[in-house]
Amino acid sequence: MPTLASYFQPARNPWDLEIDPGGSSSGSGVAVAAGLAFGAMGSDTGGSIRWPAFCCGIVGMKATYGRVSRAGVFPLSWNLDHTGPMTRTVRDCALMLQACAGYDPLDPASAHQPVPDFSAKVGHEIKGLRIGVPRRLFTDNCDREILAAFEATVTQMATLGAEVSEVESHTVDELWAVFWPILCADAAAYHLEDLKKRPDDYNPDLRLTLAAGVLVSATAYVQAQRVREQIRQRMLQQFETIDLFMLPATGCMPARIRAEASTGTFLTADDFFIYTPLFNLTGFPALVLPCGFSEAGLPIGFQLAGKPFDEATVFQAAYAYEQSTAWHTQHPAL
Amino acid sequence: MPTLASYFQPARNPWDLEIDPGGSSSGSGVAVAAGLAFGAMGSDTGGSIRWPAFCCGIVGMKATYGRVSRAGVFPLSWNLDHTGPMTRTVRDCALMLQACAGYDPLDPASAHQPVPDFSAKVGHEIKGLRIGVPRRLFTDNCDREILAAFEATVTQMATLGAEVSEVESHTVDELWAVFWPILCADAAAYHLEDLKKRPDDYNPDLRLTLAAGVLVSATAYVQAQRVREQIRQRMLQQFETIDLFMLPATGCMPARIRAEASTGTFLTADDFFIYTPLFNLTGFPALVLPCGFSEAGLPIGFQLAGKPFDEATVFQAAYAYEQSTAWHTQHPAL
Repeated sequence: MPTLASYFQPARNPWDLEIDPGGSSSGSGVAVAAGLAFGAMGSDTGGSIRWPAFCCGIVGMKATYGRVSRAGVFPLSWNLDHTGPMTRTVRDCALMLQACAGYDPLDPASAHQPVPDFSAKVGHEIKGLRIGVPRRLFTDNCDREILAAFEATVTQMATLGAEVSEVESHTVDELWAVFWPILCADAAAYHLEDLKKRPDDYNPDLRLTLAAGVLVSATAYVQAQRVREQIRQRMLQQFETIDLFMLPATGCMPARIRAEASTGTFLTADDFFIYTPLFNLTGFPALVLPCGFSEAGLPIGFQLAGKPFDEATVFQAAYAYEQSTAWHTQHPAL
Repeated sequence: MPTLASYFQPARNPWDLEIDPGGSSSGSGVAVAAGLAFGAMGSDTGGSIRWPAFCCGIVGMKATYGRVSRAGVFPLSWNLDHTGPMTRTVRDCALMLQACAGYDPLDPASAHQPVPDFSAKVGHEIKGLRIGVPRRLFTDNCDREILAAFEATVTQMATLGAEVSEVESHTVDELWAVFWPILCADAAAYHLEDLKKRPDDYNPDLRLTLAAGVLVSATAYVQAQRVREQIRQRMLQQFETIDLFMLPATGCMPARIRAEASTGTFLTADDFFIYTPLFNLTGFPALVLPCGFSEAGLPIGFQLAGKPFDEATVFQAAYAYEQSTAWHTQHPAL
């Protein structure tokens, strides 16, 4: 039986369908990359829009917490869940966010905030834009090729006139210690009844994640929420001297898809090494867009994050970078 | 050794100092009732401003969550803690809230909301004001004398022109099931380290409360927070047809002070039977003011609660009632 991969150009196939397209919004990422749709919606609790955007070589935007309604979306964590657009270009992404942003009484966390024109600064130059790079988060743990592509991106941003500087940050371990109990406990709270009634309907890995969530104490949960708020406050203060954060989207390239399906357990950061949960914890808008290819021909992306409800500046910087490079023009040919 | 009671008029002493003055802001309540101060600050996590206001025959206002800074206050529950003024009259209460309300960056939950003139409607008539009475919460469990005083208050409000109607509500048991795990777990999270290091420094009752908080699971906590939000949303909807809620402040008269001091365990609602935690769960502004005396001569108060950040309407109705009665003129004589 032919795989979907056989539809792609045989001469050069960086879009190898035996490689993990990222998740959990895998289908959305693949559909947009393959040109089956101009855009698709994703949901993002720890990076599920941005990780497939990285893997598929497209643009993915997790807007500010509360910006896009989650009504009708199956919850994973009410505190961390976001929804948002995945597209081929930055301009499309801004347009699609325009269509889906705004207050929705059906989502209790929906924000009563005015919806500006997200494309207002698309096409504006980024001279003087202050970009902070939280190197402590990724320098010692990031894949060599991803890091090289990222550093070239930093150089390009500076060439475009941005003022790039290094800023303080927490480590992956610190963030994971806060992110993990909130995610697992929220998910377990939602699934508790079904988990008791029909545990065998759950994939073993997911069941283990949820079981771990059941074991989290309320005090650990409350303390994680407290530290989370401290992290958010500290990063809000950083916006006094910068306009955007810029960092890799992940520390490792996607793996080959295993014969035996796994949804991952979320129990270790080892095989789920992403820098994206930081912006689920803070709720800041964060976008991933392409910035290169690995030696094996796989797409590499990077991440831009802005002030709460300032998606427009994220799109401004992303568009300026995108238009000064050709990465966004490379997609699978059908 | 003479008790402070001996300073009071011997002929009639409803201000018996052997009776619980309510808590936890007992000192503030007693000081204001005794005329030692025109006003005092209290903190209120489940009723700790409003319960002593009831017991001491004064006015106590727990303003909207986030309205008054909690910076410097020892936390009990970050989700439920409020601070606010306790005074002899409604007008003083509005003036004192004016002095302490407003955004404070030192309290992470402080609200970015404009501070209106809280006395703006003090002195305005309440003709046509729509007041909802959530009878299901208290009818079957409220002390006979408190209920009689409350019903006379309802009649008086109608006489003043208010449109009083019955509205749906949750029961005390339902509210307690939501309030209790949040309160205990938040408190335990704060005290956990000290509780391990020096458990004997804690009063046994409080230690038991905190130990119970340690046993709360994160899933129970998350579910309590979810139900709490549902309660809040439902009550916000009720404000489409009413302007204020009106209900007793508590279901039982204060007890005699026991020889052995106790802070209460919060483990049962039996001896802590207050209708006040509802507005810690929802964050709505709620005020208690005097509305009578028991046969034993102890003060009785009732509660008015308003829309988020609409303290002005609460003061309007409270002032109209206060000025049409003489309860507020009866204080201990020094």
